[in-house]
Amino acid sequence: MNKYAKARAHTNIALIKYWGKRDERLKLPTTNSLSLTLNQFYTDTSVQFDERLVSDQVCFNGKILDQAAARRITNFLDVVRTQTGMQTKARVQTTNNVPTAAGLASSASGFAALAAAASRASGMRLNHRELSRLARRGSGSATRSIDGGFVEWHRGIGDRTSFATPVAPKDYWDLNVLAILIDEQPKKISSSKGMQLSQATSPYYAEWEKLCKQDLKKIKIAIKTKDFEQLGRIAEENAMRMHALTLSASPDFSYFAADSLKAMRLVQQLRANGIPCYFTMDAGPNVKVLVEPENRASVLSTLQAAFGNDKVVVAAPGPGVQYLK
Amino acid sequence: MNKYAKARAHTNIALIKYWGKRDERLKLPTTNSLSLTLNQFYTDTSVQFDERLVSDQVCFNGKILDQAAARRITNFLDVVRTQTGMQTKARVQTTNNVPTAAGLASSASGFAALAAAASRASGMRLNHRELSRLARRGSGSATRSIDGGFVEWHRGIGDRTSFATPVAPKDYWDLNVLAILIDEQPKKISSSKGMQLSQATSPYYAEWEKLCKQDLKKIKIAIKTKDFEQLGRIAEENAMRMHALTLSASPDFSYFAADSLKAMRLVQQLRANGIPCYFTMDAGPNVKVLVEPENRASVLSTLQAAFGNDKVVVAAPGPGVQYLK
Repeated sequence: MNKYAKARAHTNIALIKYWGKRDERLKLPTTNSLSLTLNQFYTDTSVQFDERLVSDQVCFNGKILDQAAARRITNFLDVVRTQTGMQTKARVQTTNNVPTAAGLASSASGFAALAAAASRASGMRLNHRELSRLARRGSGSATRSIDGGFVEWHRGIGDRTSFATPVAPKDYWDLNVLAILIDEQPKKISSSKGMQLSQATSPYYAEWEKLCKQDLKKIKIAIKTKDFEQLGRIAEENAMRMHALTLSASPDFSYFAADSLKAMRLVQQLRANGIPCYFTMDAGPNVKVLVEPENRASVLSTLQAAFGNDKVVVAAPGPGVQYLK
Repeated sequence: MNKYAKARAHTNIALIKYWGKRDERLKLPTTNSLSLTLNQFYTDTSVQFDERLVSDQVCFNGKILDQAAARRITNFLDVVRTQTGMQTKARVQTTNNVPTAAGLASSASGFAALAAAASRASGMRLNHRELSRLARRGSGSATRSIDGGFVEWHRGIGDRTSFATPVAPKDYWDLNVLAILIDEQPKKISSSKGMQLSQATSPYYAEWEKLCKQDLKKIKIAIKTKDFEQLGRIAEENAMRMHALTLSASPDFSYFAADSLKAMRLVQQLRANGIPCYFTMDAGPNVKVLVEPENRASVLSTLQAAFGNDKVVVAAPGPGVQYLK
C-alpha cells in the first residue's frame, strides 16, 4: 500500500448558499446549495501515513500547527481512520493559495484536498460522490469542491445521500468572478457559528429553507439557458437573503464591512449604467462580482480604481480535485 | 371662526417599527408599532386659511415651496377640507428643528404639527385619537407624534380604529436617546418606497408581521416593569429584522452607511464591556442609541470621540402636540 498521496482542490463560490446544518456532526445541510468552482484559489495537500508517528503532524503554509490548531484536521483524519480500520498517524503538509478565513472559503479547498489526499494515502479508492461525502465531514462547503464548474450539493436524506454532483462542467460557460479582497475584518464570527445562530434564532429561517428550493430550480434553468442576468440576479438576492438571516438573528450580527457596502453599491451603479454584473458575499467582508468576459475589463477597472489594483483577483471556472505527484 | 392656528409636534423614534401599509391611501399599517416621542426634534407649523388665496402657499424653513414640492402638504390640506366641507386655501409656515430626511422622522413631527394646526384653524375640535387618525393621512409615523412618551399605534380594523394611544407618559421613565448624525447618504430610497418594496418582494415579510405582534407584547411588559435591557434588546432586534427585509427585497437595498456599521459595532462593544446600551435605525443612515441616564456620559463620550462632538444629539422623552400662540 502506498501510504502517501498529494492532491489539489480549488475553492468554490456558492451562488445558492449553504447556511445551516440539520446534523452538526455529519454536517448534513438544511438545504441544497449550488456553487461554481474557481480556478484562482486552491489548496495543495499531501498526506503521509507513517507507523513511526505517535501523533498527527500538521504543517500549514510551512508552519507546524500545535495540537489545538490542528484539531479539525486531526478530527478529519480520525474519520478516515475509522472508515479504513487503520490507526496510523499521518504527516500532513498543506499549502493554501487562498487568503485564509477571509470569506474566500479556504476550508472548502482545504478539506477537499485533504479528503482526496488522505483517502488515497490510506488506500481507499473513492469515486467523486464518495469523496464529496467524505470531504463534507471536514467542512460543508468542501463537499462542493470535488468537482469543477457548476456543482450542486444535495442535502440528501442522510449521510450516504448527501454529496455534490456537477451541474455543468468547468468549460460549459465562460464567466468571470472578480474577488474584491477587503482588509477590514469585522468581529470574527465563523460561518459555522454564524449559520448556527441564524438557524436557531432568526424568525426568517424557515422561509429561507423554502426560498433556497425555489432559487435552486430557477438558477439551474438560468445555467441551462445561459441566462447571465437571471443567474446573477438570483445569486445576488440569495446571498442578501442569507445575510438578512444574520441581521435578524439574536443577537444580531453582520459580515458587512464599510468597504463591502462600497463594493455592493459600485456594482449596483455599474448595473444602473447598463453593465450587467452581480455580487455575492459569504461569511466575511469580501465581495465577489459575477461578470461576463465582454464586460470584465470595464468592471475590473472600476473596481481597481475604487479598491486598488492588487485588491481585485480575476477568477474563472476551475477544475475539480486533481492528484499531484 | 378663528382661521389661524399654530402647533408644535415632536418627532418619535419607533422601538417596534412600522414597515408596511395595507392601504396606501389611508395609510393603514400592516402591524401595530410602538415609539418614544423625543424632546429634541420638533416642527412648528402655522396654518392660516385665507379666502383671498387661489392656491395653498407653503413656506418651509423660510423658503416658499413650488407646487410639486408642496404636493404632500396640499394633499393633506385637501383631506382637512374634505372633512370640513371647506374649500378655502391656506398659508402654511413650517419650521423644522430636525435634520430633514436623515432618518430622523421629520415627516412624523411635520405632519403631526400640520394636522394639529390645520384642524384647529379649520374649526375642527379633535381629541388626541381623532388628531392621531388625521395625522396618519399625512404620514404613518405622524400618527404616533400626537402624544408624548411611549406611544402605540394600533393597526385597527379600518380608518376609524387606526390611531395611536399613549402607553406611558413622557415622565414615566427617565431614558436617553443619543442620535448619531451620519453625513454619508446612501442612495435615497424613501421609507415609503422602501416599505412597499419590502412588503411586495421580501420572502420574510409574513414572518415580520407575526414577529411584530410578539415583540409588541414583550416590549410593553418591559416598559411596565422598566426592564431596560429587555426594552433595548427587543428594540435593537426588531430594527435589525426590519433592515433584514430591505436586504431580502428584490432588488435588494440597504439603509446602512459605512458609519452606521461603525456606530452599531461601537454600541455592541460598549455592551460587551458591561455598559447596557442598544441601537435602533430607521430608513436612513443615522443610528440612535438607547441608554439609561447613569450610563449616558460614558456612552456619549465614546460616541463623540468616534463621530465628533457635534454629531451626537442627546434626546429624552418628549411631550405630545402643543398649540402655540
